[in-house]
Amino acid sequence: MNSSAIADVWRLSPDRFFDPDPSVRNLARQLYGTVANEPIISPHGHIDIRLLSDPDAAYGSPTELLIVPDHYVFRMLHSRGISLEALGIPTPGGMELREGVSAGPGAGEAGNRKVWQLFSENFYLFRGTPTGIWLAHELTEVFGVKKKLSGETAQEIYDQIADCLTSPEFSPRRLYERMNIAVLCTTDPAWDRLEQHQALRASDWKADVRPTFRPDGVVNLDFPGWLDNIHKLEQASGIEIGSYKAFIQALELQRAYFKKMGATATDHAALTPFTQELTADQAETIFQRALHGQSQQGCDCNPGDSERFTGHMLMEMARMSIEDGLVMQLHPGSLRDYDRAFFERFGRDKGADIPIAHEFTRSLQPLLSKYGRDARLRLILFTLDEATYARDLAPLAGFYPSLLIGPPWWFYDSLNGMRRYFDLIVETAGLYNTAGFNDDTRAFPSIPARHDVWRRASANWLANLVLRGVIDEQDASQMIHELSTGLARKAYRLDQTPELMP
Amino acid sequence: MNSSAIADVWRLSPDRFFDPDPSVRNLARQLYGTVANEPIISPHGHIDIRLLSDPDAAYGSPTELLIVPDHYVFRMLHSRGISLEALGIPTPGGMELREGVSAGPGAGEAGNRKVWQLFSENFYLFRGTPTGIWLAHELTEVFGVKKKLSGETAQEIYDQIADCLTSPEFSPRRLYERMNIAVLCTTDPAWDRLEQHQALRASDWKADVRPTFRPDGVVNLDFPGWLDNIHKLEQASGIEIGSYKAFIQALELQRAYFKKMGATATDHAALTPFTQELTADQAETIFQRALHGQSQQGCDCNPGDSERFTGHMLMEMARMSIEDGLVMQLHPGSLRDYDRAFFERFGRDKGADIPIAHEFTRSLQPLLSKYGRDARLRLILFTLDEATYARDLAPLAGFYPSLLIGPPWWFYDSLNGMRRYFDLIVETAGLYNTAGFNDDTRAFPSIPARHDVWRRASANWLANLVLRGVIDEQDASQMIHELSTGLARKAYRLDQTPELMP
Amino acid sequence: MNSSAIADVWRLSPDRFFDPDPSVRNLARQLYGTVANEPIISPHGHIDIRLLSDPDAAYGSPTELLIVPDHYVFRMLHSRGISLEALGIPTPGGMELREGVSAGPGAGEAGNRKVWQLFSENFYLFRGTPTGIWLAHELTEVFGVKKKLSGETAQEIYDQIADCLTSPEFSPRRLYERMNIAVLCTTDPAWDRLEQHQALRASDWKADVRPTFRPDGVVNLDFPGWLDNIHKLEQASGIEIGSYKAFIQALELQRAYFKKMGATATDHAALTPFTQELTADQAETIFQRALHGQSQQGCDCNPGDSERFTGHMLMEMARMSIEDGLVMQLHPGSLRDYDRAFFERFGRDKGADIPIAHEFTRSLQPLLSKYGRDARLRLILFTLDEATYARDLAPLAGFYPSLLIGPPWWFYDSLNGMRRYFDLIVETAGLYNTAGFNDDTRAFPSIPARHDVWRRASANWLANLVLRGVIDEQDASQMIHELSTGLARKAYRLDQTPELMP
Repeated sequence: MNSSAIADVWRLSPDRFFDPDPSVRNLARQLYGTVANEPIISPHGHIDIRLLSDPDAAYGSPTELLIVPDHYVFRMLHSRGISLEALGIPTPGGMELREGVSAGPGAGEAGNRKVWQLFSENFYLFRGTPTGIWLAHELTEVFGVKKKLSGETAQEIYDQIADCLTSPEFSPRRLYERMNIAVLCTTDPAWDRLEQHQALRASDWKADVRPTFRPDGVVNLDFPGWLDNIHKLEQASGIEIGSYKAFIQALELQRAYFKKMGATATDHAALTPFTQELTADQAETIFQRALHGQSQQGCDCNPGDSERFTGHMLMEMARMSIEDGLVMQLHPGSLRDYDRAFFERFGRDKGADIPIAHEFTRSLQPLLSKYGRDARLRLILFTLDEATYARDLAPLAGFYPSLLIGPPWWFYDSLNGMRRYFDLIVETAGLYNTAGFNDDTRAFPSIPARHDVWRRASANWLANLVLRGVIDEQDASQMIHELSTGLARKAYRLDQTPELMP
Repeated sequence: MNSSAIADVWRLSPDRFFDPDPSVRNLARQLYGTVANEPIISPHGHIDIRLLSDPDAAYGSPTELLIVPDHYVFRMLHSRGISLEALGIPTPGGMELREGVSAGPGAGEAGNRKVWQLFSENFYLFRGTPTGIWLAHELTEVFGVKKKLSGETAQEIYDQIADCLTSPEFSPRRLYERMNIAVLCTTDPAWDRLEQHQALRASDWKADVRPTFRPDGVVNLDFPGWLDNIHKLEQASGIEIGSYKAFIQALELQRAYFKKMGATATDHAALTPFTQELTADQAETIFQRALHGQSQQGCDCNPGDSERFTGHMLMEMARMSIEDGLVMQLHPGSLRDYDRAFFERFGRDKGADIPIAHEFTRSLQPLLSKYGRDARLRLILFTLDEATYARDLAPLAGFYPSLLIGPPWWFYDSLNGMRRYFDLIVETAGLYNTAGFNDDTRAFPSIPARHDVWRRASANWLANLVLRGVIDEQDASQMIHELSTGLARKAYRLDQTPELMP
Repeated sequence: MNSSAIADVWRLSPDRFFDPDPSVRNLARQLYGTVANEPIISPHGHIDIRLLSDPDAAYGSPTELLIVPDHYVFRMLHSRGISLEALGIPTPGGMELREGVSAGPGAGEAGNRKVWQLFSENFYLFRGTPTGIWLAHELTEVFGVKKKLSGETAQEIYDQIADCLTSPEFSPRRLYERMNIAVLCTTDPAWDRLEQHQALRASDWKADVRPTFRPDGVVNLDFPGWLDNIHKLEQASGIEIGSYKAFIQALELQRAYFKKMGATATDHAALTPFTQELTADQAETIFQRALHGQSQQGCDCNPGDSERFTGHMLMEMARMSIEDGLVMQLHPGSLRDYDRAFFERFGRDKGADIPIAHEFTRSLQPLLSKYGRDARLRLILFTLDEATYARDLAPLAGFYPSLLIGPPWWFYDSLNGMRRYFDLIVETAGLYNTAGFNDDTRAFPSIPARHDVWRRASANWLANLVLRGVIDEQDASQMIHELSTGLARKAYRLDQTPELMP
């Protein structure tokens, strides 16, 4: 082991993520080779569309691109005692200089470099994590970095990335093309007017970028700022929302608008997958309580109102999906904003969302009994509780025509997460009841890294099946394409959507 | 990869299911070789005994043998949008022609062939599933098929199987012998008069086929048709069941009758493993409510009656097992008939049973505290919630002399299911607190396939233990026989049962 | 396979527990080699300190050393129908001769040999279990046994061990040194006066042996003998405990005393990780109810009192840890003394503690929201429900600076348990949010075996990461030292503690 040699040339192994056994490795390499250059289908993610819709968009510094927006990165540093202030993570009030360091436009070069140094010195914390794998991929494959990131190499690597970021080859649109993205779906609140999507479609840069309809902020009564969101939905839809009935109408109108703008899917978070149908009167009563008892902190006016209303709205959303054909995605199980004081200081999506135990079998019985055997419905389920893979999700998806199982999500978008996913799901549900891969990322340059991990993990899984005599090479050579792009295209009905022309 | 060559010769790898590592593979092959030809002990399953008791029994067409009775097969096709009607699955009212295609005696050759074609075109859905593995085994090893099943080869393979099915070599009794089955246990309702078992024992064909006492239909008050079942139990036992006390007496009489007819075990499904002892008065009160408030849909007259009564009856069944020596099997955790409308159309056991989260530790505490240390009790526990393997089952079985852990069950009767089972159970419970394998199948020609998967998975697991230095070859060479036949024989007390002569 | 040869030379493989793949094996061996001889850090265990504090301490017979005190051993024998009486396990009333055999001082040579024979004949039950691995290590590596333990070799091996036990080389202090233990922490009730620790520190034998503060017996109101324990705490602290306030004061005083005697940590068992802050008045009310309504069997005077009080005391303990710097350990999820009649006969810690399902996310929210981001707190969490590894613990530890995840515990202190631990935790929490290894053992000669399993499992895990391209060799060569000793030293603040001089 020559550690200085290793530090001098940082190079990813061409056989990375394959099992060490030579026969597996050879076959995995062969299978991976047939999809390594396939375009990327990204049907679910959180890229800021302004990066693509505004031709003059810029990334800012390496710190602003790779650290500040990525809670996967800063939550780990936080867990080892580095404050978010020291990392320049902005509070909702805007960028602030605090404790002498900060990052972002207001912080200047020195601040950004200081944060980068701190990050680099602690890069060892990411050993063995997917974040470490993605960052290594981004640095070496996207930015051409050749030295391993550490406190010693931090500033040199900062310079190299900063140089890239100002070159035309790295403009967001050019990078999008070089990353070989065929379709990219963003996630947009139900009240969004999709002006950036309109601008992008009106531009002369042709790319298949689509919105996704996400109504959590209006269908979950306890969502922070619920009443404000209702007002925004009123404005976007042009419908005065004085009643539950008008609320439903406004949602239907906005869904139609999203669909017209290219959306093929909706996206729903919920604390649990609980579903229950309310009568129109019951729904109206709860909705009125929420409208009139509402503070800015969200509302759960009578105990259980919020859970019952969300459970009902999931059924309504399934009904609408049957009618308009938008694919429905549901990912329950995250207790958002777990730490109240931290949330009040830093806001949402800052790494303090923690999974809770949940189950699907009983929770979805009302929805599935009513709509599950209707072939017009497509419902993609994600989970943060892996106990549900083999126990609930695979048996359900192995019976209901409407169900597909989404890829391993969030904390499980990882090598072991994928291995467990394949092991726990496919034997019961089969591969063809899964929805392929999506990257779900906020970090633009991490997109290829994430798909590369999935394609390699898929190839390795298939190679093992072949060498164990479970499938043959003919099967595997078809399945690797499904895993790489085919399943995702079909799951999100991207294969049924005519090319969009503004 | 020459796919046409592959499709032309469909041959199972002699090293299938072994790890690719050569040292593991060599040792696994060696261990497997010592048990590959051992007879099959099948102590728990759902083969229709008429196939064996009636010397003129016939299988019907390939479709009727391999698709129509096997919910593992048709649920997967259903999940991808193929209706059960299109597959000829009968509704309880009998075989019906629907949507132009159907299968079964009423459907004729054309209907059966059409279903077979549809199945074959979609055979790729079973890639990576145990059902796919079993079907490949049945077709190649039992019926000698040499081409891979697909839409193209469907009719040719149908012909080949149909030919087999009419040849004397494939008569059920002859096939039973050729499959090398030493003991086969069926599953029979508590009110069964076991006339088929009597007929079989009276015949000149000698085989060790035994009934199993399954009382769910009378001890679970919410079982569909409960009152009818009580009447059947009255008739079978000759006891008028006007009271809880008479009910217990009838059950004891039927158990004695089953035992006389060769049974060594009872079998119990329950939604959860909840146990609780009621006083005789409490039990009587609930039982009277059920008797008199009973509709044909089953009864849960007062909320919780059904759960409490089932929980109490499990304790009663343990008491009876202590007294009569019948081995008790309990497999909780399946929410049967999940989809009400589907159930009303197609009836029970049609692939719409979905597991629920459950636990054993608290649920079984009343039963185990009272009976668990009594060496006369033998209680075999199965689960559909693998979270219970290492957390509940292994610690319980590693303490209580009465407990054994049943093999991976239902959805987990699979390569990964077996791997997880060994990994999660043996370190805490030891191998000798497990019950060996059982196939639990309704599909007669799948019996050897299922035991073969288990024996290979066992050999592979042992080979890994040897090569990792956890056990030595001497240990492994003994353990492989236990896994193949020894544990099952002992668990079900088949080693203690004198040869049955009518 | 020459089984007689195997039985004649019982030798552990130098590559044991490494994957069979040659590339993994080579690298694992290399990594393991760098830590194989590192001293043992044992920050959490249950060794009886009298063995070390009393220079004349003796082990007794092999039976008394290896079987009688080790519930891992006798629970397995019990599960296969061997009574604890037949194994000489004493009842709380003292050693008794029963059923003709027994062990311990009162039993004499014959009794001890008879138990040893029974154990040896059933040693095969431990195949594939960590107990089997530890025993094999102890016998071969500590006592130099060369024949495999069986009924045949039992007495010869008994002789060999008995000889060792009387030789000066095997005196507890000498063995401690030869086992290369750098730090050993015991577990001591909150009311302990630590007289043995005082004696040890006053002796001329210098070893870093430290107490750990365990207050379960006084903070869990339903602990058997709670009121007695309160009286002992009064005597130890010199504070009359007539009020909740005095109770808190007594605990703080005893913590200070433990700290002065070298303690760096506290240790807490709880049925669940439930936390909830009570007002001082609420706590006082419950405490008074317990003080005055108390029987010797523990108290849960009003329903829920005990759960609420324990949940509150966990928060108080976190507050005290912030103030005095003692590391807090919490291991919930064991339903102690599961079998009431068995408990009444044999007492606590006899192998009848069974895990229950639990979760951390909601349970710890009150504690973590209040104290979790305070860098002065260190809270090490253990679990018996592995579903919490990836779902709750890794996301929590990957956010909160105060949290570390303890090593796989109790039933999961095993090869598969460690593999699952690494697979399920590190991707989300990183390695540096874990607490390294501890052996948690009651069996003195098993200490090296347990650390050896961990070091080998760690090396094997790292070798796989390197060969899969997830980390490089430089990373691995640092991580193996962290795993072997570094993480444990830091987690328990043993690196911050000046050498103790009496």
